[in-house]
Amino acid sequence: MTEQVAIGIAGVGKIARDQHLPAIAGHSGFKLIAGASRNARIDGVHNYQNVEDMLAAEPLLQAVSLCAPPQVRFSQARAALEAGKHVMLEKPPGASVTEVSVLAALAQQNHCTLFASWHSRHAPGVDVARAWLAGKTITAVNVLWKEDVRRWHPGQEWIWQPGGLGVFDPGINALSIITRILPHAFFLKSAELFVPANRHNPIAANLDFSDALGTPIRAEFDWRFGPQELWQIEVTTRDGILHLAQGGKFLKIDGEVQDIGGEREYPSLYDRFFELISTGSSDVDVSPLQHVADAMLLGSRHEVEKFED
Amino acid sequence: MTEQVAIGIAGVGKIARDQHLPAIAGHSGFKLIAGASRNARIDGVHNYQNVEDMLAAEPLLQAVSLCAPPQVRFSQARAALEAGKHVMLEKPPGASVTEVSVLAALAQQNHCTLFASWHSRHAPGVDVARAWLAGKTITAVNVLWKEDVRRWHPGQEWIWQPGGLGVFDPGINALSIITRILPHAFFLKSAELFVPANRHNPIAANLDFSDALGTPIRAEFDWRFGPQELWQIEVTTRDGILHLAQGGKFLKIDGEVQDIGGEREYPSLYDRFFELISTGSSDVDVSPLQHVADAMLLGSRHEVEKFED
Repeated sequence: MTEQVAIGIAGVGKIARDQHLPAIAGHSGFKLIAGASRNARIDGVHNYQNVEDMLAAEPLLQAVSLCAPPQVRFSQARAALEAGKHVMLEKPPGASVTEVSVLAALAQQNHCTLFASWHSRHAPGVDVARAWLAGKTITAVNVLWKEDVRRWHPGQEWIWQPGGLGVFDPGINALSIITRILPHAFFLKSAELFVPANRHNPIAANLDFSDALGTPIRAEFDWRFGPQELWQIEVTTRDGILHLAQGGKFLKIDGEVQDIGGEREYPSLYDRFFELISTGSSDVDVSPLQHVADAMLLGSRHEVEKFED
Repeated sequence: MTEQVAIGIAGVGKIARDQHLPAIAGHSGFKLIAGASRNARIDGVHNYQNVEDMLAAEPLLQAVSLCAPPQVRFSQARAALEAGKHVMLEKPPGASVTEVSVLAALAQQNHCTLFASWHSRHAPGVDVARAWLAGKTITAVNVLWKEDVRRWHPGQEWIWQPGGLGVFDPGINALSIITRILPHAFFLKSAELFVPANRHNPIAANLDFSDALGTPIRAEFDWRFGPQELWQIEVTTRDGILHLAQGGKFLKIDGEVQDIGGEREYPSLYDRFFELISTGSSDVDVSPLQHVADAMLLGSRHEVEKFED
């Protein structure tokens, strides 16, 4: 494939404007031709109220990138796949794990690419960390993912509603990294969920995982943190400590800072989407969302003070 | 394989005595040689305090059936698989979905059979219902699973603790049936969970599922019901209504009661386990537990009155 892929965006909110629009504009493989959003408009392209209208009016559209909250992901993705379009899903890929599996089957039936994207896996330190950890004996993993919800999600009601994940919305980024860099599959042993008295989703969570070898893997997520924030993963091995910080943009191995290049998460995501379309394949890994569902299944809930935005 | 499989049971509680011991005793393919339980003893076989002791002392053991609560399933199953034994898991197969996937990989590495059993799928009406529904156009599914928790789980604390599932402990039986008989995969759209003020797990739940075609699939689970109890599934199709009642022991199709034979769920489970061992294969379908995890992820929680046993 040498021609550009005609792409549309659904859900023109903060993440679309901050990340997707610049990444698509800077990518030689894609040409943005349309947007679908109830309220927002993208300059210079055709705009529609919803995905169905966009699909009906734009026969040349080949791909759709879904950036709306996860609660509406399935119906938008189904409409696009049934219209024969390739689909990229922002994280999390759905409001439930099973609906993502159903989408994957739909994509296959319709000979379309489905890409369940995890942007944090495209942070510059992730592939280097994965390569270094392969074959190492790991003795402990510690994850601290602590930020200020008021800074990152001001007034966003959907994150507190069922399907919106609460503190797992950032926490799933950490889970998407450790499911990628650790050499063995791991699973939840116990969890504590801290839920504001007036909200449905946790504002903080402590998770204890293990792999089949018994390696302790601890993750602490907290949305009540700042102004100094923390997005770090420390992996202790028999050959030294790997320290991934700033969400994957900083990497130190055995005391030495690694030269891993600059951050280009979303350009790299669109590279991957283009590659998948070009090779007629899909990439749907639900494991980070699966861990969150397991935490909600197995975790002990503790009521904490009300959260007002 | 013509010889009997030497089997041990771990977790000698109500379900082991009511179902597993009689089923094994009546099965020509298995010979019970040991039991592992902290407090209980099985007459006529060697008894041990825990699975590890049983595995160490019984080199002739070929298979283990795990009947303890799901919170301890993983560590028992891992020990048995690493000792090269075939493993059958009572439902639910684990305290999290991911741990069951990790077990499946361990079984494969160790060339052992892993059978994640769902006893309700072996009710006599299930296969007949599945065969009749194949290829039918389904317009609605309604599940009512309503029983008295005090009758079925008197004083069982583990069902209320994290990992114990609450009303999903019986509800997952209904889910194991509909995931088996419906011709299309379905997923949760929304759920309401009713949780006693003094408990972690729901005592009732209303679930709204859909398949990719938009078919409405509604399930109502309630543990506050009786003395007349309900375990029924009604599937409306363009060719008539299928009515499965008494947990799968009664089947009516388009008004006509079907002759489906008598109940032999657990004997049939052990038939299946024996077949899997004989053919060197495994059967691990996590979809019923996956739906429960999705419900805990996506469901709205409503506090209801305290439950005292």
